[in-house]
Amino acid sequence: MPLYRVTLAYDGTGFAGFQLQKTSGRTVQGALEAALLRLSGGVRVAVAAAGRTDAGVHALGQVAAFELSRELPAGALQRALNGLLPDSVRVVAAALAPAGFHPRKSAVSKLYRYELDCGAVQLPQRRRFAGYCASALDPQAVRAAAALYLGRRDFASLASSGSSTTTTVRTVTRSEAAFEGGTLVYETEADGFLRKMVRSMVGGLIAAGRGARSVDELARALEARDRRGWPAPAPACGLTLVRVDYPPDSGRS
Amino acid sequence: MPLYRVTLAYDGTGFAGFQLQKTSGRTVQGALEAALLRLSGGVRVAVAAAGRTDAGVHALGQVAAFELSRELPAGALQRALNGLLPDSVRVVAAALAPAGFHPRKSAVSKLYRYELDCGAVQLPQRRRFAGYCASALDPQAVRAAAALYLGRRDFASLASSGSSTTTTVRTVTRSEAAFEGGTLVYETEADGFLRKMVRSMVGGLIAAGRGARSVDELARALEARDRRGWPAPAPACGLTLVRVDYPPDSGRS
Repeated sequence: MPLYRVTLAYDGTGFAGFQLQKTSGRTVQGALEAALLRLSGGVRVAVAAAGRTDAGVHALGQVAAFELSRELPAGALQRALNGLLPDSVRVVAAALAPAGFHPRKSAVSKLYRYELDCGAVQLPQRRRFAGYCASALDPQAVRAAAALYLGRRDFASLASSGSSTTTTVRTVTRSEAAFEGGTLVYETEADGFLRKMVRSMVGGLIAAGRGARSVDELARALEARDRRGWPAPAPACGLTLVRVDYPPDSGRS
Repeated sequence: MPLYRVTLAYDGTGFAGFQLQKTSGRTVQGALEAALLRLSGGVRVAVAAAGRTDAGVHALGQVAAFELSRELPAGALQRALNGLLPDSVRVVAAALAPAGFHPRKSAVSKLYRYELDCGAVQLPQRRRFAGYCASALDPQAVRAAAALYLGRRDFASLASSGSSTTTTVRTVTRSEAAFEGGTLVYETEADGFLRKMVRSMVGGLIAAGRGARSVDELARALEARDRRGWPAPAPACGLTLVRVDYPPDSGRS
């Protein structure tokens, strides 16, 4: 059966995350599988994805894959799915994938972006896709904290208790904090992220930027491999899965 | 009684426009007056505004004015109102205004921005604050159409039937169409705008850009002073009242 790879953008506000829940809650995977069920004329199509974004987290470049019983031109598949999906989820690209492609296992790296508005007033126009911090942050302290995350490290201190992974070691290849107007734009890229890891990274940046923790204290809390000593994760609404990268010849989308 | 001037930003999505309605519908004015009623301990405070934005239209710099029975530092007024208003409305600046200041009558010019995403797919992240057009637009035709609006003209063809103004002549000093990625960003500034005039201007740009109307045809439809010959107005969600300008010494905010 032909294997397809789709790139998804979504507004995570109204979703209980990407992954199907046993309990109640609308998920992006549920919306996509419902659209595929209609497209396939009632045959259930199972979807795999690059990452299970948490409730309220957005995506510009989530990648999902599924098999269809019949081959369809990629453009036709994209248009058909966009006709069946809610407006809050869009297929921005579709392609045939090579046999064996798996959106999570084949991924080489993921890029996340977090936007945090800082200052006296957050514009209503920014509420849906940015976190908010009433205090101004010290850019130097934020950048120094961001540098702590770079490299191959054990991120156990930043993992949510719900993680089921066997190892908490990840390699972070990018950890950049830029200030644009009153907004902190933080981008991080790694071979993978633990559950709530990016939001915890941003929680650390906020603590450093506000002066609640020194960069040395954060460095020690990171090394301690104990999540109880780490600042609270930043709110989900500011986080976006921007891109997932694959080796060449994994099907372009 | 001291007269205050506030600058408001709002997400117009959930509002039936700025102005209080006789019929049902949540309005920005209603939200502001409800906050002022609580601030003043139950005394009704009447609000005047620079423009009554339509249902679904947003603002970054709407200006409103009202009298309070007691003088309050502007910063304290701003913080108190932001504590009482819904998150979708923010006071971004507040100031004491000189006697006789009226946000609409004292205004010299207003600047509106319209964002229109064009192309096969609109990102879910853009749906709230941008209109959408599935076809690509011809930038040259759009710019030529935008130039038609410049100067002192009778805009009767672009006025909604609900307009109650005595004259339909306005002076447009800015009418600029820029393309940023797949988005048309249109900015227009005038001494005033008729009801639905900016959305009708954008409707004209879309008709020209898609090739549905030639620029000459639009020029004739504008001169005809008959709204029945003009393309439909663009959707409200793409429109933002960016700024209202006043003569110097009208109270900075």
